[in-house]
Amino acid sequence: MHKRALSKGIFALSFPLAAMVGTAQAAAPELSAEEMERANTIYFQRCAGCHGTTRNGATGPNLLPETTQELGQRRLESIITLGTEGGMNNFDGILSEDDITLISKYIQHDPVDPPEMSLADMRERWQVFVAPEDLPTEPQHDLNWENFMVTILRDRGAMGIIDADTKELVTEVETGYAVHVAKESSDGRFWYVQGRDGRLSKIDLWMDPPQVTAEVFIGYDARDVAVSHYGEWKDKYVIGGSYWPPHFVIADAETMEPLKVVSTRSYDTEGNFRNEARVAALYNTPHAPTFLVNVKESGQVWQVDYSDIDNLRIEQMETAEYLHDGFFDPTGRYFQIAANMSDKMVFLDTETRKLVSMLETGTKPHPGPGANWVDPECGPVAGTTHLGEGLLTFWGNDPEGHPDQAWQICDQIETDGPGLFVRTHPDSDNVWIDQAMHPEPDVNQWVMVMNKETRELTPIHVADRPLEHDAVAVHMEYDQTGTEVWVSIWARGDGHQNDGAIVVFDDKTLEVKAVVEGLNTPTGKFNVYNRKHHVG
Amino acid sequence: MHKRALSKGIFALSFPLAAMVGTAQAAAPELSAEEMERANTIYFQRCAGCHGTTRNGATGPNLLPETTQELGQRRLESIITLGTEGGMNNFDGILSEDDITLISKYIQHDPVDPPEMSLADMRERWQVFVAPEDLPTEPQHDLNWENFMVTILRDRGAMGIIDADTKELVTEVETGYAVHVAKESSDGRFWYVQGRDGRLSKIDLWMDPPQVTAEVFIGYDARDVAVSHYGEWKDKYVIGGSYWPPHFVIADAETMEPLKVVSTRSYDTEGNFRNEARVAALYNTPHAPTFLVNVKESGQVWQVDYSDIDNLRIEQMETAEYLHDGFFDPTGRYFQIAANMSDKMVFLDTETRKLVSMLETGTKPHPGPGANWVDPECGPVAGTTHLGEGLLTFWGNDPEGHPDQAWQICDQIETDGPGLFVRTHPDSDNVWIDQAMHPEPDVNQWVMVMNKETRELTPIHVADRPLEHDAVAVHMEYDQTGTEVWVSIWARGDGHQNDGAIVVFDDKTLEVKAVVEGLNTPTGKFNVYNRKHHVG
Repeated sequence: MHKRALSKGIFALSFPLAAMVGTAQAAAPELSAEEMERANTIYFQRCAGCHGTTRNGATGPNLLPETTQELGQRRLESIITLGTEGGMNNFDGILSEDDITLISKYIQHDPVDPPEMSLADMRERWQVFVAPEDLPTEPQHDLNWENFMVTILRDRGAMGIIDADTKELVTEVETGYAVHVAKESSDGRFWYVQGRDGRLSKIDLWMDPPQVTAEVFIGYDARDVAVSHYGEWKDKYVIGGSYWPPHFVIADAETMEPLKVVSTRSYDTEGNFRNEARVAALYNTPHAPTFLVNVKESGQVWQVDYSDIDNLRIEQMETAEYLHDGFFDPTGRYFQIAANMSDKMVFLDTETRKLVSMLETGTKPHPGPGANWVDPECGPVAGTTHLGEGLLTFWGNDPEGHPDQAWQICDQIETDGPGLFVRTHPDSDNVWIDQAMHPEPDVNQWVMVMNKETRELTPIHVADRPLEHDAVAVHMEYDQTGTEVWVSIWARGDGHQNDGAIVVFDDKTLEVKAVVEGLNTPTGKFNVYNRKHHVG
Repeated sequence: MHKRALSKGIFALSFPLAAMVGTAQAAAPELSAEEMERANTIYFQRCAGCHGTTRNGATGPNLLPETTQELGQRRLESIITLGTEGGMNNFDGILSEDDITLISKYIQHDPVDPPEMSLADMRERWQVFVAPEDLPTEPQHDLNWENFMVTILRDRGAMGIIDADTKELVTEVETGYAVHVAKESSDGRFWYVQGRDGRLSKIDLWMDPPQVTAEVFIGYDARDVAVSHYGEWKDKYVIGGSYWPPHFVIADAETMEPLKVVSTRSYDTEGNFRNEARVAALYNTPHAPTFLVNVKESGQVWQVDYSDIDNLRIEQMETAEYLHDGFFDPTGRYFQIAANMSDKMVFLDTETRKLVSMLETGTKPHPGPGANWVDPECGPVAGTTHLGEGLLTFWGNDPEGHPDQAWQICDQIETDGPGLFVRTHPDSDNVWIDQAMHPEPDVNQWVMVMNKETRELTPIHVADRPLEHDAVAVHMEYDQTGTEVWVSIWARGDGHQNDGAIVVFDDKTLEVKAVVEGLNTPTGKFNVYNRKHHVG
């Protein structure tokens, strides 16, 4: 049943009970039990990320019956099919017409309170496939595993392990659905991946082929993961962050046993309670035994000290809504994160565990893994692309060496369309920017390459052949040598699920070197060497 | 509507919606809208404290329809009228027969989700009656205000200001309903009282008569308050703790403007989510700029650092359920708090901000303001009475001087019945213990006085005359000189609301020195001098 906001009595709780019998249910289009179940699953996989598990809205607007019944069935179907100017994706080619009809009906019903998940529930679904003592003591294959690209195959529910030396797919490892990010053990051997379905898997790259050694489910809807890398806690803990229930879970990084769960339900920066205060992104801090937990709806970054998890120290830094992806400056002291609904980048000092500054950017900044480089005029800078407009914004991030530039905009460079990712390498002259959020193939199949010296853009057509089906170029990653840039082609539409590819460019000539074909919705790629050494 | 626990799908949220249409409402006895409103108010004032705002149970069992409909109307009426062996109070004489019938019907209905409260809601109900610049710069009366007894007149919704020199009631100050505890500014002049209805009032004892200078509502159901006393933050912040919504609020101690709200919804020590994780008690730590926030249902003590409330540092110490009242050791470093459903006392080190130890006591320890003294055998000790049995338990609390005794039971002394409070004074030979939780007047109108040297008990009949109406002796407080002990007589029953009294004893002779009569349900008393100097 939908939880209603009730009257607030002066002296005591005095509820207008008579008014509580919902009329929403009566006015909603009829659905059978089976249709309801199916719609629930679709909503959860495709809609909840932006509109919230409880449909109260987040990046997208609320989808409560008072809103959706007002719009009506025809208008809802049209919005879902075609998308909106406001940032809503078009779902034709992703959902069938029948499913669009179904989901349009479904969202006119009262939302359902989703269940909680206890530590005992997690333990029940915790599995060790290979006991730590049975793990190999050296690599079981002769491949250069430090140049593997650990690649999200989004709709396949798997990670593709691709050898960047040979451009061959080594194996596909079954994991959770729609993995958002993968994080490495300090030696780069183990990879921890958080499925959107809450499944948190540990992959061993030394096995032949690489496989999952242990897993645990930490929520019903989850996004990110991080591994403790500091001091005596190196590789001791893994943290998983959940959208629903809104909490984070600390598990044993060796066995994946869940040890501790902490709720992130909290008040936003204006003092409104957010029952759905979701964990957007998680990071290990290089210089302290802490994780950064970014609580999306409450606009708080929690710096969680893992040196004593029974007496858990948390610094709750008030910043801005809604927190999404972030990255460290090159020193590892400062953390730079997007508050996308506030059009701001937020800067934190992980040493003092306090907010340093906030910066107005373009519409909905989204740095993904981000990029740090040296600008000839401003010195050390970092940049973000934007979900809401075609723009690269970069700012000074060297408060010691360049105090006047620090946390101020150095420049803003217009691209052809809104994008998701920006990426560079210390040995490269280039900064790569995708335009994946633009609706037109003439833009979203192209990426931009900015020269660091001149700030001039070169557009690059990522597909090496005309792509007649719906496909976008998304996410760049350098290989171990820093000379190749790997760009994903994300294909979609019926019959094209396996037409995704990765196009490999020479970073100097900007020519195509190779194409890895036959991949199902390849998205984020994580080069073992670069991630382990925090290059980029 | 009652929030149900739903099935937990493996892959995605898959809700058995068809099963969700409640049958509870149909089977519950009919109530009119007016009856429902009245029952809500009664439930909230009398029942929610033990059974929870959402009726999911806490100190008392859950009162959800599946439980209450099974018991049925007659059995429910009988339990409410007569109480139970398990600790349920008898409500005959407190509630009318009609109201007992009404509330028995009401609790067979589905519970209602209570509303949230935002910082903006609090600001709307924030009032400054006397601006800080208009406050007097010296006392406006010639009374010895440092020997005032600030006295809770529970059902009157007021604090009685009693002059302990003259034994006269100076004034009654209207505050929130059923105040639980009062806390002082560092000079003892201002008193902050938290009403059960969420009303947090600031009283100025220098005014003639003393009156409320500002107030704010911080929740719909609240219990405790504390004031920052450390360093540069002395008297800067006041913190209020709420049962519903489960949160704490930091306000400006000068104006009572609400500044910050933090949710305490959290997981208990077994990893179960507690939507109703209520703030039971609040304390300022003498040696650090921190508050202790005791989260009842989750068994966590949060040490909340108030030195930077925008980057709020919290240590979440995992202890035991359910946390209630606590007190410091004489050094102010260690904090001793009851976890009453675990039959434990919990010991925390506020310097390291970590749990030190836990100790098994008798059934449901309840120290109230507690008592520290020196035992001839064990050295420095502290003691608690118990809600569940007639017992004084005391333990060593000097880990530096008496490490073998520290946090170990020194002795347990049987009294005639379960009680609420224990109290002493450094200059006294006695420890006073009430027996207020025993159902019989032959016990609950008596208190016990233990000699610190011999550990022998002397029973004292508190009423100076036969009390024919229902009345119990509860709560002891020393006066400023440390020679008098003030004991409340808590009268109840129709027509006897103003028959409460405070009986003043000579602590040496144990003879009655005076009686302050005509008080409405006097309960806790706070002597300005003793509280300000942390005597006892």
